[in-house]
Amino acid sequence: MGTPRVVIIGAGFGGLECAKKLDGKPVDVLLIDRHNYHVFSPLLYQVASSLLNPSDIAYPVRKVFRGSANVRFKQLEVQHIDFDRNLLEVDHGPPISWDHLVIATGSTTQFFGNDSVASRALGLKTLGEALQLRNHILSCLEAAARSSDADEQSAWMSFVIVGGGPTGVEYAGALAELMRLVVTREYPLITVAPRIVIVEGRDQLLGAFSDKLGSYASQRLSKLGVEVVLGQLVKAVDGDDVVLDGGDRIRCKTLVWSAGVKAEALSTIDDMPVTERRRIDVDRHLRIDGHHDAFAIGDIAGDLPMLSAPAMQQGRYVADFIMAHLDDEPAAPAGMPPFEYTDKGTMATIGRNAAVCAVGRFELTGLLGWLGWLLVHIYYLIGFRNRLVVLGSWCWNYIWYDRPVRIIMRAKRQPTPQLPHSEM
Amino acid sequence: MGTPRVVIIGAGFGGLECAKKLDGKPVDVLLIDRHNYHVFSPLLYQVASSLLNPSDIAYPVRKVFRGSANVRFKQLEVQHIDFDRNLLEVDHGPPISWDHLVIATGSTTQFFGNDSVASRALGLKTLGEALQLRNHILSCLEAAARSSDADEQSAWMSFVIVGGGPTGVEYAGALAELMRLVVTREYPLITVAPRIVIVEGRDQLLGAFSDKLGSYASQRLSKLGVEVVLGQLVKAVDGDDVVLDGGDRIRCKTLVWSAGVKAEALSTIDDMPVTERRRIDVDRHLRIDGHHDAFAIGDIAGDLPMLSAPAMQQGRYVADFIMAHLDDEPAAPAGMPPFEYTDKGTMATIGRNAAVCAVGRFELTGLLGWLGWLLVHIYYLIGFRNRLVVLGSWCWNYIWYDRPVRIIMRAKRQPTPQLPHSEM
Repeated sequence: MGTPRVVIIGAGFGGLECAKKLDGKPVDVLLIDRHNYHVFSPLLYQVASSLLNPSDIAYPVRKVFRGSANVRFKQLEVQHIDFDRNLLEVDHGPPISWDHLVIATGSTTQFFGNDSVASRALGLKTLGEALQLRNHILSCLEAAARSSDADEQSAWMSFVIVGGGPTGVEYAGALAELMRLVVTREYPLITVAPRIVIVEGRDQLLGAFSDKLGSYASQRLSKLGVEVVLGQLVKAVDGDDVVLDGGDRIRCKTLVWSAGVKAEALSTIDDMPVTERRRIDVDRHLRIDGHHDAFAIGDIAGDLPMLSAPAMQQGRYVADFIMAHLDDEPAAPAGMPPFEYTDKGTMATIGRNAAVCAVGRFELTGLLGWLGWLLVHIYYLIGFRNRLVVLGSWCWNYIWYDRPVRIIMRAKRQPTPQLPHSEM
Repeated sequence: MGTPRVVIIGAGFGGLECAKKLDGKPVDVLLIDRHNYHVFSPLLYQVASSLLNPSDIAYPVRKVFRGSANVRFKQLEVQHIDFDRNLLEVDHGPPISWDHLVIATGSTTQFFGNDSVASRALGLKTLGEALQLRNHILSCLEAAARSSDADEQSAWMSFVIVGGGPTGVEYAGALAELMRLVVTREYPLITVAPRIVIVEGRDQLLGAFSDKLGSYASQRLSKLGVEVVLGQLVKAVDGDDVVLDGGDRIRCKTLVWSAGVKAEALSTIDDMPVTERRRIDVDRHLRIDGHHDAFAIGDIAGDLPMLSAPAMQQGRYVADFIMAHLDDEPAAPAGMPPFEYTDKGTMATIGRNAAVCAVGRFELTGLLGWLGWLLVHIYYLIGFRNRLVVLGSWCWNYIWYDRPVRIIMRAKRQPTPQLPHSEM
């Protein structure tokens, strides 16, 4: 028998943590991802608001495992998982066999079947979406500056953000600051004021936090000029109009969607047991029901909040579990205690000097919350250089009220048969 | 009579310098460009080799004229120039009238009518092309790491650069360093050595420099492992084979083209007098022949080298000329002396601690040349923050032998009618 092979699908928080924990252990690890980088997704909204460069929050996966003797990376996309033969079919090359499989493919934007919204909304879940959103927002400003029609200018300068969770709140605040810092100083031809509306179906922003913190977020956003609409849903998009279920219409060219995520569709998910919310059903040891050698962690599985913290803890747990049961017979009972999630708290930032943090019953707001948010995010950011660059950018932007990354940037596309990816 | 209106097409080195010189003067200036940023093009090759972020060398045009009372910017593309009625037709909104017109649209890649090459080659003239090239090179490494076939791996790991001018030489050196720093450390599954070939039609690299500096460049590139092929042209591309006119074939997936540029095609260039090399013909005052109120500067006009220095000097000259002749009758003779180009020298870098500089008969190579190159480029880079970031990146990369920006990054595309540009 050779060295056991662990295949991990997905280099997000869960998959990366699992691979790191297995680094140096007597197993062969193959980590695959459709991208060649890991994204620190909590800061995506800062890429989408011209604060940070994409590469500041994305880290090449290979660099993490530089010098590792047993962890290999390949940029691949999974086509099918064959559980009967322990084979992974991928988009390039022959199928890959595994002894232990870890599925950590994350989540994607959820439109709840609303096609008119789905076709018009901009997401904020991936680095590509964040860059697209940045390009879009900056292009709206240019379009507004070109227009001499006040109604048209208003539409270009109106931005609707759907979803009052941390992503929606953070982006609304960052967008308001971008507008305040840039429009008056650099767009003398724009005569209408920007309008930013955040729409949340529940009666309060930041539903995962306490009422007190939710009210604080509403209040801070209002101070920044953001209109907070609570208890309403976006029903449809009709031309340039976003239609709320109360009947109100908002004419705008920008609809940002942060109102829901769902487990990333694997073509194979139908072969697997799923929960009510279409996440993979796992036992208390994070094993997929019916498959003792396949695990699922993070957003794709179970019923924990779709956040980085549970995914990272699960990644480490699964690594430990695999190592502890390496020599077990398939049917042997699990010796390790079940996985348990330790909630270390959650936080969201609302703009300059304002954030909310909740650790158990302990809550922080304002400048202190903001500094706490800052420290935690710098700490978890991967790579010393990224920490340095992001901290440097934040200081610069804080002192100079600057939003430096304001170029409308697209890679030139040119379909050439030499290029390795058709999408290039 | 109102304030005279100067319209400048293009925010490259020439157009930007012209607008800056007219800032604060008693004229209305409208600067237009198809992008919302100015690019410091001498460093494009560093974006294409994972050294710098796009935003490090691109600067929002609006930021340059923040607070200016008389310079306005609009992101527009020119469709047609109507010289009879002094009207500029653009892609958005009504035609724009001018009293003085400055055409500074630059140059684009020239394939000399070779279609098989044109359809397969990657350019290095725009920021979009640089980003595309970076994505492509990194994707080649990933494809090589996926492949278990040695021949296929060789093709992914072979890179042909056509053109031995500064861009070709600088990119060859930067690519060799990228490969050396990254491949052995992070791609254990790649077993073939990278092959980088630079092909130049003349008998020497850096034709604009002396023989001595050309030989020095060849020698330094060879030391970095680059194959230098002189006196040969690329005849065609046949499948994965690049065919040289001597008959040699190089199997590769990457063909970088830096072997020629031509004046950027304006749909209107047929209405204008052109030189033998299809650049706009201008008189000694940079006025387009037959049009006393229209100027052309930079790569698009005349017969000076297609470099930033002549473009910038011409931009300043035209600004001065317009101001000096504001009140003249159309037929009045020019009072200002003709434009004269002051050659302050040229330079090119070949990699770590190696560059060539030529100022008149004074020449520098090696570490001194490299430091000179560094200082000059930092000095001319626009914006204090960009200088700081680029200098910081260079120091970091120099000390740590790092190439940090190694993410294969594309903005997500999603054709939605809300998006202001179809290309978004």
